[in-house]
Amino acid sequence: MDKKTATPRPLILITNDDGYQAQGIGELATLMRELGDVVVVAPDAARSGAGCSITSTQPVSLQLVRRETSDHAHGCEVWACSGLPVDCVKLACEAVCPRRPDLVVSGINHGDNASCSVHYSGTMGAVFEACLKGIPAIGFSLRTLKHECDFAPYRKAVLRVATNVLTDGLPHGTCLNVNFPEVPKLRGIRVCRMARGEWMKEWAEVPCPRGGRWFWLTGEFNFLEPEADDTDYWALDHDYAAVVPVKMDLTDYTLLPRLEAAFTE
Amino acid sequence: MDKKTATPRPLILITNDDGYQAQGIGELATLMRELGDVVVVAPDAARSGAGCSITSTQPVSLQLVRRETSDHAHGCEVWACSGLPVDCVKLACEAVCPRRPDLVVSGINHGDNASCSVHYSGTMGAVFEACLKGIPAIGFSLRTLKHECDFAPYRKAVLRVATNVLTDGLPHGTCLNVNFPEVPKLRGIRVCRMARGEWMKEWAEVPCPRGGRWFWLTGEFNFLEPEADDTDYWALDHDYAAVVPVKMDLTDYTLLPRLEAAFTE
Repeated sequence: MDKKTATPRPLILITNDDGYQAQGIGELATLMRELGDVVVVAPDAARSGAGCSITSTQPVSLQLVRRETSDHAHGCEVWACSGLPVDCVKLACEAVCPRRPDLVVSGINHGDNASCSVHYSGTMGAVFEACLKGIPAIGFSLRTLKHECDFAPYRKAVLRVATNVLTDGLPHGTCLNVNFPEVPKLRGIRVCRMARGEWMKEWAEVPCPRGGRWFWLTGEFNFLEPEADDTDYWALDHDYAAVVPVKMDLTDYTLLPRLEAAFTE
Repeated sequence: MDKKTATPRPLILITNDDGYQAQGIGELATLMRELGDVVVVAPDAARSGAGCSITSTQPVSLQLVRRETSDHAHGCEVWACSGLPVDCVKLACEAVCPRRPDLVVSGINHGDNASCSVHYSGTMGAVFEACLKGIPAIGFSLRTLKHECDFAPYRKAVLRVATNVLTDGLPHGTCLNVNFPEVPKLRGIRVCRMARGEWMKEWAEVPCPRGGRWFWLTGEFNFLEPEADDTDYWALDHDYAAVVPVKMDLTDYTLLPRLEAAFTE
């Protein structure tokens, strides 16, 4: 009875772009249950590289996969969605969550989303969406190529960042992009700016028995400022967790005067 | 003979998210041929709401649709790609263009990409990709719901913005998001910041004969700052073309000190 009348625990919505069955999202759900009531709404399979894309040309489905109540006083619902990470957040807020989430966390992605990769990332697409809705949001990604990872080295940092955001909030329109290096022990947390970099040599042409020209996306990352020690990429290269505050307002304010001079009659 | 030894005209790569057959990209190709040599590499069908998403789980195809040389001294090649707008730019730069493009233009999109819609826009995803590669890039979008539009009122502004960027360039990591209102005559060009806004009431649940819960994305735009007269949304509402300089560096520099105090040991 006491529990029902007490202030509700924070509601934490969890999603990702690797699908609801990925190891990283299970890890995140377990950790977030220490901090609040958890709802998982995630793609029904992997949606890597989905960025902020949305499903506008077909309907998306929503299916309850699991409702756990036994091992915690607070339950954990897991929903699978046929759409993209951004769809998951949009749908969770409107059709699943019993109230507005206090926090949205996405990940833990298998693969880093540092530097320009943030633009292509479905993990971060979901975070952007929450942020555009005014909900504090964090994306967690691990620099690894493995499907099965040891997340133990990152648990403390995940809880620390999430606790901080639950307590202090974030400014409207700003979210966090957190990346971990694959190390047995983090050297610490570094607050960083997004590194300048680009992907190159991105295509491998492959033969096709039906003819035509076909290409697989691949690529090498070209880190454009390896010397600067204040970037997310530098932090990962030096065994630190990288925390980058990310803005939804993309305006380049420094360029406004020049453009005004050029275009205003 | 003279033509062959003269300095080459600028190379302009054109793409979009409505597909190579859309009216808007044809309009853009015709206009850009006044300014340079044109290559079109665009999706083989509509890819609305693709944002910066990339195709990583299947190969993409590239097909030459048309090579025109008759009506201009400079030719125009049109390629169709089975991938997303970002794939088109990546593939064009590596497998199609005879040299690095001097300018990438995307659009003219049927539908505006002002305010937060820039995040979901495939038109702008292509522009972001060019910008990340260090190529000056502009996205053009028209606030309309029609498939067939009269682009005459916008031709002068398209040429003016493109000519300015070809002449003066853009800073590395900044591109332009240009939106037009649907009007018989523009009141002028306004240089703007991105308006704060969000999409709400986004889902319509629909019955499915096979069962399950299915939803179509829809939504109403909630303009969060209608009074401010320096935003792209305001400009469109007042019959101006809106030019927003857009940054690829998403770092919220103002938040770095607070986060450093919270997370640095």
